[in-house]
Amino acid sequence: MDRSIDQGIVKLREKLLLMGGYVEKAIEEAIQALLENQPTRFEKVHAYESKINVLHKEVDEDCLKFLAIQSPLAADLRFILAVIKINTDLERMGDQAVNIALNGKEYLGHPPLKPLIDIPRMAEQTQFMVKEALDSFVQRDLALATDVLDRDDAVDAMKSQIFRELLTYMMGDPKKIEQSLNLILISRNLERIADHATNIAEDVIFVVSGKDVRHGARL
Amino acid sequence: MDRSIDQGIVKLREKLLLMGGYVEKAIEEAIQALLENQPTRFEKVHAYESKINVLHKEVDEDCLKFLAIQSPLAADLRFILAVIKINTDLERMGDQAVNIALNGKEYLGHPPLKPLIDIPRMAEQTQFMVKEALDSFVQRDLALATDVLDRDDAVDAMKSQIFRELLTYMMGDPKKIEQSLNLILISRNLERIADHATNIAEDVIFVVSGKDVRHGARL
Repeated sequence: MDRSIDQGIVKLREKLLLMGGYVEKAIEEAIQALLENQPTRFEKVHAYESKINVLHKEVDEDCLKFLAIQSPLAADLRFILAVIKINTDLERMGDQAVNIALNGKEYLGHPPLKPLIDIPRMAEQTQFMVKEALDSFVQRDLALATDVLDRDDAVDAMKSQIFRELLTYMMGDPKKIEQSLNLILISRNLERIADHATNIAEDVIFVVSGKDVRHGARL
Repeated sequence: MDRSIDQGIVKLREKLLLMGGYVEKAIEEAIQALLENQPTRFEKVHAYESKINVLHKEVDEDCLKFLAIQSPLAADLRFILAVIKINTDLERMGDQAVNIALNGKEYLGHPPLKPLIDIPRMAEQTQFMVKEALDSFVQRDLALATDVLDRDDAVDAMKSQIFRELLTYMMGDPKKIEQSLNLILISRNLERIADHATNIAEDVIFVVSGKDVRHGARL
């Protein structure tokens, strides 16, 4: 094995995991600010997003250099292509954390709805998927990656359930329309984060097995 | 110049444009079905999305093979990396066209709001950005790509304006809540399509100039 290829891959993996850690923290701050009614924590989301954006550009540049210098093949090439895609997904997850912060700030500016419907449970499930997707990437673990895919339907179902409940709230009391809308948008942000976690899991499956399981194909 | 590299690049460009054409048609059918109240046209969106998904996997596979066989450098390598990213954006645009179809079908199932607020104008602007982004890719045209970036703020502003107007509708008449929500979600779908067009334009700028203009960097 070529040591410089191995070293390049280790460095890229580390940088992507650093980015993944910031993404997890950005989501955590956005959710906790909302659930604990601590609007100052929303600021931290923006700070994490800036770090994510810097790494986003760095990772792409590193991949370009790696491809140009090493001309990797087979599993190494699949790894680099996966990193390019995972990088994009992580950056968009950071954007969604910012969207949760923006919608959450508006939500906290109005009298709160009690309870927060299924938002806490949906957030917990989504955060679990993000963690599991990142773990599957580090450990090159097909079972973990497949579990992420299996969880996506449950998050989608929660989104639909939340939508129906909030619609009922809004129709019953027009004074609750704005807060309900904010929560509907937050549930969509969470759904998109779960989608990105699913994309990452699909990329991990591709790296490890060489199989493209997107669009309903099975492993 | 290496002829087989050139041929590979020509083929990839053609396949991506075919995919881009399907994306444009999927968006067009979804929007026209909504604006002209012709729900049967929503079915065509799903048909186009299937074609897009097939090409999505093919393009990734083609890029992998191209990188493995040709080990391209400099501008050719940047082109392939851009194709990998544009491929992802096009596929997500297809997903958003499907989301417009789903939300549009629900919208048409209720008594319509008149007028459709600024949705037609926002759709027109978004479709223009998609066309311009694809044209900038074919023609390797920095001016066109930069124009796409400049238009994104206007689409975002329309989204916010539509949101405020629909909020007023909903608060004034709870019977309009469901239809208004559908239009709010459609405006978000359009906004995301415009974001993907912006991503494509940024990738074109990177291919042509070698500059990474993402996250607020300038050309």
